[in-house]
Amino acid sequence: MAEPRAYLDYNASAPLLAAARAAMLAALDGAGNASSVHAEGRAARRLVEAARADVATLVGAKAEHVVFTSGATEAASTLLTPDWRMGRSPLRASHLYVCAADHPCILSGGRFPAERVSRIGVGGNGMLDLAGLAAALAAHDRQEGFPLVAVHAANNETGVIQPIAEAARIVKAAGGVLVVDAVQAAGRIQLDITNSCGDFLILSAHKIGGPKGAGAFVGVSDLMMPVPLVSGGGQEKGFRAGTENIAAIAGFGAAAREAFSGLDRIDAVLAKRERIEAAILANVPDAEIFGRAAERLANTVFFAIPGVKAETAQIAFDLAGIAVSAGSACSSGKVGPSHVLKAMGIGRPEGGLRVSIGEATGMAEIERFDKALVVAARRSAASRAA
Amino acid sequence: MAEPRAYLDYNASAPLLAAARAAMLAALDGAGNASSVHAEGRAARRLVEAARADVATLVGAKAEHVVFTSGATEAASTLLTPDWRMGRSPLRASHLYVCAADHPCILSGGRFPAERVSRIGVGGNGMLDLAGLAAALAAHDRQEGFPLVAVHAANNETGVIQPIAEAARIVKAAGGVLVVDAVQAAGRIQLDITNSCGDFLILSAHKIGGPKGAGAFVGVSDLMMPVPLVSGGGQEKGFRAGTENIAAIAGFGAAAREAFSGLDRIDAVLAKRERIEAAILANVPDAEIFGRAAERLANTVFFAIPGVKAETAQIAFDLAGIAVSAGSACSSGKVGPSHVLKAMGIGRPEGGLRVSIGEATGMAEIERFDKALVVAARRSAASRAA
Repeated sequence: MAEPRAYLDYNASAPLLAAARAAMLAALDGAGNASSVHAEGRAARRLVEAARADVATLVGAKAEHVVFTSGATEAASTLLTPDWRMGRSPLRASHLYVCAADHPCILSGGRFPAERVSRIGVGGNGMLDLAGLAAALAAHDRQEGFPLVAVHAANNETGVIQPIAEAARIVKAAGGVLVVDAVQAAGRIQLDITNSCGDFLILSAHKIGGPKGAGAFVGVSDLMMPVPLVSGGGQEKGFRAGTENIAAIAGFGAAAREAFSGLDRIDAVLAKRERIEAAILANVPDAEIFGRAAERLANTVFFAIPGVKAETAQIAFDLAGIAVSAGSACSSGKVGPSHVLKAMGIGRPEGGLRVSIGEATGMAEIERFDKALVVAARRSAASRAA
Repeated sequence: MAEPRAYLDYNASAPLLAAARAAMLAALDGAGNASSVHAEGRAARRLVEAARADVATLVGAKAEHVVFTSGATEAASTLLTPDWRMGRSPLRASHLYVCAADHPCILSGGRFPAERVSRIGVGGNGMLDLAGLAAALAAHDRQEGFPLVAVHAANNETGVIQPIAEAARIVKAAGGVLVVDAVQAAGRIQLDITNSCGDFLILSAHKIGGPKGAGAFVGVSDLMMPVPLVSGGGQEKGFRAGTENIAAIAGFGAAAREAFSGLDRIDAVLAKRERIEAAILANVPDAEIFGRAAERLANTVFFAIPGVKAETAQIAFDLAGIAVSAGSACSSGKVGPSHVLKAMGIGRPEGGLRVSIGEATGMAEIERFDKALVVAARRSAASRAA
């Protein structure tokens, strides 16, 4: 019998948790549309509202401030818009400031034209340049509209945790709105939207052990809301039309519950990451672990093996039964130089290899990784000898 | 033991087919992100591409012209845009013409400002006013941009089948683009996008026995495409960013396969509908079946019981264990007068009750409906005596 594979690519998509799977199965057996008023419809509605409460709890929000979407990318495209409303009054965001190491769905600028999007840099440690943010906002022309700022809470490639509380203070002082992409941070660090966590958070179910196909944006209030991206029926209080994906939302709720309780056990994940990093440095003493000077997520290691291209190493790991990633997985299999490393000013031609794990990652999986690492290390040594 | 409920609200959401459920379960067990290049990612990619071929077959399209979305509403919001591209060249649709009996996600006008959306009426039979469409397009100013027209292939409330081939000829002659909302028509009437079926079709998985959370827009080609609504990663060839909802897409594919083969057995559904209509007219001789003068879907009956409000009847049916609908289910449980009946010039204060079925609807369910109908008929007679 073939050895089971070691899946170490949680930041691309985490395996579905048993609780999320069970919640989905239960939901799939109901036929109802959550907008229908009959018993089947009301049962679907209850599942959606229970999940809303669970997702709210994960980030310290009120349930009524959670708007479900088909995923984080849709949530980002919804929030990154010049057009906002306070009640019925229109409000305008005249410029979008993003972090150069943000996910492509943030870098794309959503509904902003390209000329109204500026990038704020990161340091060599991968952390947002706060002085750069403050300077950009100081130069912002309030006459045209308010500044909208988007920053990720933790980086999908390096795991570097951003100084969100400081960024929130700077944005607030400038009269701006801060959108925080918490996709990778959720369930890995404490998030409390009422406490310097930005005005809106973006979440994704499938990065926390829920299913693909559900995400949300969560507001600290609903006083000021983006003009809807998807319009039609009155679902999600009119903020996002379309029949609710009951099963995915129920799975998201179950995963949010587990992610919330899992925060208490995050040190066990960190211990595994430290075990992996020790193996990397033992086998490849000159390996570079990116973002090591900053605080990082407990589950992520992004590193370069000198002399071995990350894409080549990734394929070798894959053939050895280990799923890791060379950069992030958001561009349809395309593998290019990492924009995150570029933003950090790191010019390594080898690129980075990302290992990302979760609570369920077992010692057997880590040992398989160790073994494959030895082969990569030999290749690295050979390249130096050549 | 309680009698099982009779679910007769397929047009709101059809029960999940066993084949779709099985396809979803198989997909849920894979952890991969379809954009990842490792084995798990490639397995996810294969599921997406197999489903794409199945969805294409349902409407006679090429697989590469299917773009998956989170549902029909998102597909509509994507297609109903002034901004198009032919390759890299921008193209502009200057005005949107919709049918007054369209679904709210079409009536909303998507990304068009309200002043650039016009409604074309329907006759008392529920069918699009073709002369009105031709007149509107004759008055369209081509200097500003091309006309974009959106019409549903079959109505979600009445089941009335629209004269799409004729509409397509009129739109083509005017140099316009025709978007056909085929959500309710798919799997119930033959659709061949290469044969006078419009330039783009909108599909929804959960109306054909697939899961909620998947839909698509399908082009007759990909020469001319809408500017993406959701931007970020390069998924769906750049036409729709966001991690693919593998399980929902796999379920959509399985449902599309069944819907395609089910077209050969649609007469059995029609026989059940005729049985239901005969029962309605036998119990309530002055009941009005809407759109009866037009060709209608085999699965839909929309009718009024004189003297009995549809909302009241719907609740009574629900309490008797039967799920039917008073109008459509797209506005979060809100029940208002039907815009479809209004567009048809029908001013019945009772409103309409919709029964919509599928291949799996059994005789026992229809008999339960019959029994509850007797009670409603008695109420109707009493209202006349009063």
